[in-house]
Amino acid sequence: MTDFFNGIPHIRHEGPETANEFAFRHYNPDEVILGKRMEDHLRFAAAYWHSFAWPGGDPFGGQTFDRPWFGDGMALAKLKADVAFEMFAILGVPYFCFHDADVRPEGATFAESRRNLEEIVDYFGAKMEATGTRLLWGTANLFSHRRFMAGAATNPDPEVFAWSAATVKSCMDATMRLGGENYVLWGGREGYETLLNTDLGREAEQAGRFLSMVVDYKHRIGFKGTILIEPKPQEPSKHQYDFDVATVYGFLRRFGLEGEVKVNIEQGHAILAGHSFEHEIALAASLGIFGSIDMNRNDYQSGWDTDQFPNNGPEVMLAFYEILRAGGFTTGGTNFDAKIRRQSLDPEDLILAHVGGMDTCARAFKAAAAMLADGTLERLRAERYAGWDRPEARAMLSSDLTTIAERVERSGINPEPRSGRQERLENLVNRFV
Amino acid sequence: MTDFFNGIPHIRHEGPETANEFAFRHYNPDEVILGKRMEDHLRFAAAYWHSFAWPGGDPFGGQTFDRPWFGDGMALAKLKADVAFEMFAILGVPYFCFHDADVRPEGATFAESRRNLEEIVDYFGAKMEATGTRLLWGTANLFSHRRFMAGAATNPDPEVFAWSAATVKSCMDATMRLGGENYVLWGGREGYETLLNTDLGREAEQAGRFLSMVVDYKHRIGFKGTILIEPKPQEPSKHQYDFDVATVYGFLRRFGLEGEVKVNIEQGHAILAGHSFEHEIALAASLGIFGSIDMNRNDYQSGWDTDQFPNNGPEVMLAFYEILRAGGFTTGGTNFDAKIRRQSLDPEDLILAHVGGMDTCARAFKAAAAMLADGTLERLRAERYAGWDRPEARAMLSSDLTTIAERVERSGINPEPRSGRQERLENLVNRFV
Amino acid sequence: MTDFFNGIPHIRHEGPETANEFAFRHYNPDEVILGKRMEDHLRFAAAYWHSFAWPGGDPFGGQTFDRPWFGDGMALAKLKADVAFEMFAILGVPYFCFHDADVRPEGATFAESRRNLEEIVDYFGAKMEATGTRLLWGTANLFSHRRFMAGAATNPDPEVFAWSAATVKSCMDATMRLGGENYVLWGGREGYETLLNTDLGREAEQAGRFLSMVVDYKHRIGFKGTILIEPKPQEPSKHQYDFDVATVYGFLRRFGLEGEVKVNIEQGHAILAGHSFEHEIALAASLGIFGSIDMNRNDYQSGWDTDQFPNNGPEVMLAFYEILRAGGFTTGGTNFDAKIRRQSLDPEDLILAHVGGMDTCARAFKAAAAMLADGTLERLRAERYAGWDRPEARAMLSSDLTTIAERVERSGINPEPRSGRQERLENLVNRFV
Amino acid sequence: MTDFFNGIPHIRHEGPETANEFAFRHYNPDEVILGKRMEDHLRFAAAYWHSFAWPGGDPFGGQTFDRPWFGDGMALAKLKADVAFEMFAILGVPYFCFHDADVRPEGATFAESRRNLEEIVDYFGAKMEATGTRLLWGTANLFSHRRFMAGAATNPDPEVFAWSAATVKSCMDATMRLGGENYVLWGGREGYETLLNTDLGREAEQAGRFLSMVVDYKHRIGFKGTILIEPKPQEPSKHQYDFDVATVYGFLRRFGLEGEVKVNIEQGHAILAGHSFEHEIALAASLGIFGSIDMNRNDYQSGWDTDQFPNNGPEVMLAFYEILRAGGFTTGGTNFDAKIRRQSLDPEDLILAHVGGMDTCARAFKAAAAMLADGTLERLRAERYAGWDRPEARAMLSSDLTTIAERVERSGINPEPRSGRQERLENLVNRFV
Repeated sequence: MTDFFNGIPHIRHEGPETANEFAFRHYNPDEVILGKRMEDHLRFAAAYWHSFAWPGGDPFGGQTFDRPWFGDGMALAKLKADVAFEMFAILGVPYFCFHDADVRPEGATFAESRRNLEEIVDYFGAKMEATGTRLLWGTANLFSHRRFMAGAATNPDPEVFAWSAATVKSCMDATMRLGGENYVLWGGREGYETLLNTDLGREAEQAGRFLSMVVDYKHRIGFKGTILIEPKPQEPSKHQYDFDVATVYGFLRRFGLEGEVKVNIEQGHAILAGHSFEHEIALAASLGIFGSIDMNRNDYQSGWDTDQFPNNGPEVMLAFYEILRAGGFTTGGTNFDAKIRRQSLDPEDLILAHVGGMDTCARAFKAAAAMLADGTLERLRAERYAGWDRPEARAMLSSDLTTIAERVERSGINPEPRSGRQERLENLVNRFV
Repeated sequence: MTDFFNGIPHIRHEGPETANEFAFRHYNPDEVILGKRMEDHLRFAAAYWHSFAWPGGDPFGGQTFDRPWFGDGMALAKLKADVAFEMFAILGVPYFCFHDADVRPEGATFAESRRNLEEIVDYFGAKMEATGTRLLWGTANLFSHRRFMAGAATNPDPEVFAWSAATVKSCMDATMRLGGENYVLWGGREGYETLLNTDLGREAEQAGRFLSMVVDYKHRIGFKGTILIEPKPQEPSKHQYDFDVATVYGFLRRFGLEGEVKVNIEQGHAILAGHSFEHEIALAASLGIFGSIDMNRNDYQSGWDTDQFPNNGPEVMLAFYEILRAGGFTTGGTNFDAKIRRQSLDPEDLILAHVGGMDTCARAFKAAAAMLADGTLERLRAERYAGWDRPEARAMLSSDLTTIAERVERSGINPEPRSGRQERLENLVNRFV
Repeated sequence: MTDFFNGIPHIRHEGPETANEFAFRHYNPDEVILGKRMEDHLRFAAAYWHSFAWPGGDPFGGQTFDRPWFGDGMALAKLKADVAFEMFAILGVPYFCFHDADVRPEGATFAESRRNLEEIVDYFGAKMEATGTRLLWGTANLFSHRRFMAGAATNPDPEVFAWSAATVKSCMDATMRLGGENYVLWGGREGYETLLNTDLGREAEQAGRFLSMVVDYKHRIGFKGTILIEPKPQEPSKHQYDFDVATVYGFLRRFGLEGEVKVNIEQGHAILAGHSFEHEIALAASLGIFGSIDMNRNDYQSGWDTDQFPNNGPEVMLAFYEILRAGGFTTGGTNFDAKIRRQSLDPEDLILAHVGGMDTCARAFKAAAAMLADGTLERLRAERYAGWDRPEARAMLSSDLTTIAERVERSGINPEPRSGRQERLENLVNRFV
Repeated sequence: MTDFFNGIPHIRHEGPETANEFAFRHYNPDEVILGKRMEDHLRFAAAYWHSFAWPGGDPFGGQTFDRPWFGDGMALAKLKADVAFEMFAILGVPYFCFHDADVRPEGATFAESRRNLEEIVDYFGAKMEATGTRLLWGTANLFSHRRFMAGAATNPDPEVFAWSAATVKSCMDATMRLGGENYVLWGGREGYETLLNTDLGREAEQAGRFLSMVVDYKHRIGFKGTILIEPKPQEPSKHQYDFDVATVYGFLRRFGLEGEVKVNIEQGHAILAGHSFEHEIALAASLGIFGSIDMNRNDYQSGWDTDQFPNNGPEVMLAFYEILRAGGFTTGGTNFDAKIRRQSLDPEDLILAHVGGMDTCARAFKAAAAMLADGTLERLRAERYAGWDRPEARAMLSSDLTTIAERVERSGINPEPRSGRQERLENLVNRFV
């Protein structure tokens, strides 16, 4: 045991009335909702990068956090892992997620970095076995190092493509080795800073081939998890190719991968793209590509990704409602891709941020489940479209403009609008929040 | 001749030095650039709706314009047409565009509206023959009347779908009759106000079927023009399904229509979707679906579609540069989907706004053509990707992760980044503006 | 009794468990909180304009609502009043608010409009006496008619200034006559569309003089209410002079009116200006100019003012918390400057939207009151600044740079940052939501 | 001479037709415009921080630039200065600007940092004398170090206030010593991350006192330059107190400093605050607080400060037009607070970015000067307000509501709107661009 979280107890459920900051008020892993344990519904994961690798910098300021594991070398990487798994245990999160760069020292060569990763993966493996913590997903950091500044798969330099491909292979191997349930690709540098030096056609071809290779490799090694793309419209790039769910869908269709790859949707990224979180989830579900979520919130007054822990119950409820409507998570889960503010210096802050986030999710999830069980909203939705369930209406969809136009004139059709009832539906939602 | 534009002369090219407000300084239809007349490159169109049907209202105020043709009935509709064609002649625009609702009185029934449209189409036909003005595209207004408040093709009420289908048929017939070179669909109400009452799956199916019928009808009647979808992310709807070019592409792919339908890209819509105009054009071109443009500008400090006449040359130049790179317009053109400000009350304002817009486009187009002819930018772009022209690099795209990873380790690949040279490319652009 | 709200009962409090849509779950006017009845804390007002004067149009579509009182003439204006006061009674709102243009027919001359207003004010007076409904504030509509298109007080035409002054006089008279507790000025057209035709200096002088006259007139007639300015950054104008609370404060200081005029803060306007609602309230309170609120919400994905009924409890709670910290309302109140969606066609929608809004506010208010009573948040806030309560620290504020610099060097001051504890404070808030 | 800019010649004016990247096409320092040399109008300054202290990082990636002076210690600081002054000479910029943290090594104590600053100031002094480069302004970096994470003057910890005061003193001393013409305060951390832990009243009092001390110190030491506040709405802070020009004006009024302090306006900050650059300049001028500008551009599709070199002539022209209308710069100037993109790795990129920015400004300035000399725009502006020049109209501003209302009724005033002529004014502007 390290002494980083000295004196912080394991977090237990004490119910909504507790005044204990270090307790869950809503998250009760064993509580059964809609026939399943809450833990198995929510499938919480902690993100290694924000909590253990981020020094607290922002564009106008440097490091604020003093962490004993900051620095180079394998010993510090292992100390970091020790603390991370202690946090996972304190919180009782069943999963975690990581990038290669979060967990292993950068080597002088690709091979050395790969060997470092393998060593830390072994170290993780032992800890996972000992604690029962599982891996929701692994991923490769193809954006922080200066070699990726002009892209990874979409780089104008084929050597960077090669490096990226080799890196993804090593990260997929690591994910497979640790029993990861998904593998994620977020293309922070797959985009451009200026169209003036960019060949969109070439870069799309590169991206399509890269993703196809990833899918092939998954099958070759027998990885049973899901390949996930994480959309984001921009930041760091001025424009990012995986802009939003609809854009990713078009890309997958173009390269015939819509049956192989799903999406990992982040609330903050949805908002930057001009969408609500629930929109992106509902759209992905309707397109058959919903996979997993990154749970955070953005500041609505800031134009960049603030990655804050969720704290607005009604918003989170709408997200979980769409997930439940889509049948809930399969391989996906709720990853806190959220970071404490750079002024939140204390180890306690790290714990309490997660406690608050987990409680917000649990409370929202229960409300969503109750609303789904109640059934009123879905009944009202279905009623709105009831006209389309009539055979004549369905038949019209296989008809043609001429036939329809004749019917409109012959029957003197003159449709009268009906109330959309938005406010009463919002009131209904608020009954469950 | 009406007396609306009393005393305003036909606009002629007088060159950059003229102080005459009622002259072109840059637009010279017969000037040959890159082997083609400027008029044939730019293919300007005036939009009937903004200039002749809009009363000057905004969300906080009513009508500001006093126009002698405002009111009901066929006689006023014909007076409006008279004035419109006078404006086309004064400006020398070769094309115009219209919605059914802009040009014909609304009837008490669908059939009466259709007959009104046919009568006005005949009236237009005679004027077009007399003046030589042509139709760039026709379209149906499926968003203003309250019957469309919850959508047209995507309405929960199948009767509205039927009405919409019949309307599009009548508008396609009108467009065909007038020799229109394109037919446009803009789905201002194809979207939602709240996800709570919306079934995304059903609505997408309806939209897909609707568009397929439109394509079928085009072939049935032998319409040789292009079917165009105009993307917009929102406004009036909270979310609009044809969000942006990438979203439309995914939709077309899903319904197998990517070879049949192209896009009409509007600058203001691009900006509302978080893109630059040139991005949307370049993306559409790279996906093979570029069709036409709506030329206007948005106020960057306003969060809604301001539809102002273009006046920023450097921005417009980048748009035309991408159009030229894509080979220029085929059936498409430059439609001024722009409206004078509601305080611009005078007939002169209507003329001068177009003069300014046309001159801005002409000047920008010439700069774009010069930059393309110069070739430096394209040479620098190609050089940036030159590494990919080597056979080994191309071969990598048909390889696999394992093979690539082995090579990376074996060859000790360690790519060094190269300057993206953004500022010098921007300087280069400014040499031509 | 009209039959517009036929069959809709008066709304009563039934408690959180009720499934009755037409009941309050949280708003209980007589419940005592922090020593005062909930009704007296919240001071709800219904807005005449959105509920009774708005036809349901938007920039791309016309009227959707069919209301029996739409049209011209005094008889319809009185029918509208009948229905309005029936709604006030059904909801049990203690207050309402109105513009002149909402309630009286527009006359052919100023004098006729004034007389129409006086007639309707008498009609209101009788109804208010009969029902007990009171007037929270009156105001003048100086933005809808085309005469105001270039401003009211800030118009380049002095005749429009005169008309506006006369109009405000008549509306202040009406407000006084009806016992209004405040008088509001919202300058929707006090701003500009283009800086190119605008003289900022002149327009500010006009605005300052206009407001001074309003204050003088208040004193002259012995009006005891508060004069309120409602900030908004833009829409309809490209730029509006009363941009936000801080801007209004500077304007008041400039013309020596900071002791005479306060602000009416609207959530949607705060958001358009790049602020949270609670920020604007807290800032106004700290500057001594907090007056009243317009309660609504904006859609965070839309760049214009959507004026929706509030439904997000945690957000509303933070607003009421700042109001309570500032001592609660004095003459101000909670005006629902919110409109039902244009698809919400039914009379029931109008009632249920208000019921939902009132319940959201009541629930949020109770949470805010509980958090204030608890005291933990205020204690933690005070502790953060505790260093400044030491006399040496206070003394430093009256010192000078040289003295302070000497002490820094002499004492070897080297301050160590302390955690800002944001997440735990957010958790604390969520304990009360 | 270092060899950093090896082979790059001094930049000379060669005229618009040159194809030489390393020449000015528009900036000709000795060309006389409106009676003054272009250099004396534009007063260009290079910013030390972006060009010499920024490593190329962004929120998702680390250092991209390899600079021989990166690292600790006085020797490297002097090497950095050597290169910086070489760049100033190559470009021929008459001014530079710096923060303390840009130029001196951070010491272990405040006193050591101060002595380091003094040593480097001496080094600068010698170089300035040798080269003729002058200091436009100095400033203190009170935002990068973790001690400032919760504010400088507005910190909850009085020791940070003290540190900040001592730092500003040392930077004002340095600025005075180097003959700086202004002293700037930008409060990147003077704001908050969450209102929950913030006492707006206390923090404003601290800020007001701090600024008063700065003004006192200026007078005490006989500094003849101008004290400037640089507004910015947010980033890094969620909310920054010096939000925009109007907010700063209210703050200055509140503390009686409106005659002592002016503003340094940055284009990117204006845009983040929801304003155009020209708006902020025109507003400051009309309030009598215009001081200086930071010239850059923001990406309109990015929600953060991108600090790019200006390249859009028409936009820049409108800014210089407002500066010229206000009488031009006095102590202020055109500081390039702009950074090359992180992919622009080469020394050449640094030079060419400035060349492009200077040329964009020069071309725009000449257009602005020509438009002012032409006089048409100002004549049209004045005509629009001509009604107010009549004595009766002026008299109305000293009148009262009752008198005005009587006149409106008696005279049957009914003002008719006149065209705002926006498009023709925009056309007029384009004649000069």
